[in-house]
Amino acid sequence: MGKICHIEGVKLGCASSNTRYGKRNDSLVITLNKESTLSGKFTSNSFKAAPVKIAIKNLQSLIKGEKALVINAGNANAATGSKGIKDVKNYCKEIGSLLNINPSNVIPFSTGVIGEPLPADKYLSAFKKALPLLDKKNWKDAAQSILTTDTKQKLISKEIKIGKRIFSITGFAKGSGMIRPDFATLLSFVFVDAKLNSNSLEKIHSDALSQSFEALTIDGDTSPNDSSLLVATGKKDKQIKKNSNEERALKLAIKEVFEQLSQLLVQDAEGATKKVSVNVAKAKTLKQAKSVAFTVAESPLVKTALFGNDANWGRILSAIGRDSEINDVSRVSISINGQPMVKKGNLDPKHSEKSAARALKKKNIEINISLGLGKKEFKVLTSDLSEDYVLINSDYRS
Amino acid sequence: MGKICHIEGVKLGCASSNTRYGKRNDSLVITLNKESTLSGKFTSNSFKAAPVKIAIKNLQSLIKGEKALVINAGNANAATGSKGIKDVKNYCKEIGSLLNINPSNVIPFSTGVIGEPLPADKYLSAFKKALPLLDKKNWKDAAQSILTTDTKQKLISKEIKIGKRIFSITGFAKGSGMIRPDFATLLSFVFVDAKLNSNSLEKIHSDALSQSFEALTIDGDTSPNDSSLLVATGKKDKQIKKNSNEERALKLAIKEVFEQLSQLLVQDAEGATKKVSVNVAKAKTLKQAKSVAFTVAESPLVKTALFGNDANWGRILSAIGRDSEINDVSRVSISINGQPMVKKGNLDPKHSEKSAARALKKKNIEINISLGLGKKEFKVLTSDLSEDYVLINSDYRS
Repeated sequence: MGKICHIEGVKLGCASSNTRYGKRNDSLVITLNKESTLSGKFTSNSFKAAPVKIAIKNLQSLIKGEKALVINAGNANAATGSKGIKDVKNYCKEIGSLLNINPSNVIPFSTGVIGEPLPADKYLSAFKKALPLLDKKNWKDAAQSILTTDTKQKLISKEIKIGKRIFSITGFAKGSGMIRPDFATLLSFVFVDAKLNSNSLEKIHSDALSQSFEALTIDGDTSPNDSSLLVATGKKDKQIKKNSNEERALKLAIKEVFEQLSQLLVQDAEGATKKVSVNVAKAKTLKQAKSVAFTVAESPLVKTALFGNDANWGRILSAIGRDSEINDVSRVSISINGQPMVKKGNLDPKHSEKSAARALKKKNIEINISLGLGKKEFKVLTSDLSEDYVLINSDYRS
Repeated sequence: MGKICHIEGVKLGCASSNTRYGKRNDSLVITLNKESTLSGKFTSNSFKAAPVKIAIKNLQSLIKGEKALVINAGNANAATGSKGIKDVKNYCKEIGSLLNINPSNVIPFSTGVIGEPLPADKYLSAFKKALPLLDKKNWKDAAQSILTTDTKQKLISKEIKIGKRIFSITGFAKGSGMIRPDFATLLSFVFVDAKLNSNSLEKIHSDALSQSFEALTIDGDTSPNDSSLLVATGKKDKQIKKNSNEERALKLAIKEVFEQLSQLLVQDAEGATKKVSVNVAKAKTLKQAKSVAFTVAESPLVKTALFGNDANWGRILSAIGRDSEINDVSRVSISINGQPMVKKGNLDPKHSEKSAARALKKKNIEINISLGLGKKEFKVLTSDLSEDYVLINSDYRS
């Protein structure tokens, strides 16, 4: 991890609620300057946690002034009924009041166990303890505090010079299972010190997501808590004009941060031993490319074969063939890390079992699929499926 | 296993090709009397193995006279190009000629490794060796010969008295992973000594499948070889009239055989430690009920929780919530083996963690889901997801 850029207008502080994780920090407060604009994207799951419902509502009714984010790990506050909603409203109000911020400008996020009542008093005292610690430097502590089954923190930072001005982007995320587009058990917070209007910010956020968290799957499962927040804190001197070259350059840099966070998520996927990229090309439509890429990336038989270093292209072809968007595999070609596997729906004559086996031992796997039907393409990041995935998910109620 | 009824008109013989499984029988020939009618249903995967392509063709152009089935285990003859097709045509012709049966009345089936060229000569000599062994008694040997990763044979037989006549139904199947509606890596052969016309037979077959192999999933993956064959061998004295009460009684009995075969398949699912039934009720449409049942039954997080005896209803609710047919979980109720879990989208006040944990330790798990949206229901059989599933599927190229 290189230098972490502080973002003007952003302060972070964390503390421990002394609940699921003992003395480890699990409660994070972030304050944002009054110039900040926010874009939030949330789980597509119709089962939504209490904090997600409130976050969506509050983001729609932001008023002028400072904002705050309150984030807890260890309890998802999902399926907790009216008590869950009341708890969130209450701590947003209390923290808002202590920070002199309107409660509807306080945005809540949670991750952790589903369905257990939130020990709200304990998290509230942790949030309170975090307030005197608010500081622009606390990025690493913040990135650490939101983790659940993750084994590593996911923190990315970069500087970019656009024209004569230097912009900084810093973001962190958590998540290692239940990750699927329209993203899942995923919390991500990215901050940039540019001044962007809300429309531009929304657009940049959507674009960045479509090629990062929305092109990522661990097990196909999604959660009620998934949230991605993009914040622009810049003042007048950091204004970026709409549709300018400057905006395009910044957008690209933000997209890179999202992509790098995605890579970190996949590398830390539960039990994963390999990072796998499923690249579908020559599809008739984007929908088709996307559908095939996810079907292959989520096939348990493909994922277990990858874990076993087995160049089992038959399972890949079977997964493609069962996809609802496919009714013909006779033009399908498949290669893995450059090794030919399938040509026009049959074993590629150039296939060498020995070279294929060697290629499969790599930690980074590129599965290239050509459907031979058109010009569209889509890429999905995933992991293999190991015994450890089963161990982690049968042992721990996450 | 009780008494195995022989089916008049059916003879079975098996031998070994001495390939993947050494001296174990892996090649099966079955002859059917000239009165027999056949109904075949095949994989919905658009990647279809050579024998499936030929079987579909031959079943459409059956001519009067005896028929034969030739079945091999160990090699799927899938993605094997024009050689694969030629091999099948060739052994159908040779075996037909030796049996004095028209080659288009010889129906081929294969199961095993995808993409390896078929050692056709070896299977052909095994089929030839099986011919002098053809006998009406060989059901157990036959059921054994078609297995691949299965640990147990799946053979079901029953007699039913309808009016004054007694009918016999005997069937066997194989499959333990890659099983999903529109069924997969599944071969099933069911025989009844009734005389049924083709239309009735097709209808009975479709109905039986919809509540058995088409309501069953191990990992959501399907194969290029899945086939189900229903054969009626009866002569004039065993005629069953269309739409009669007799037909309904027989249909029920056949359905039971299919359902019992399904149960055996799930019990022997790769690495499974539990048999799980996901029952979705009060859905708005059958499509919705089916979609939710399969989404829950195939969720890796639900399946690993079941393996871990964890009453993790949050994962079940999350799986329901991400289903494309669902946009509201506020009326969803969930119970497992009678233990209350979720009521109207939230933790059921009657939920007891202790009783739930006890219920989850059972080997047979019933997940009852009420969507609270309508009157339709659908039930899916599945298994849990264990470390052994991963071991089996990362170790063995199936």
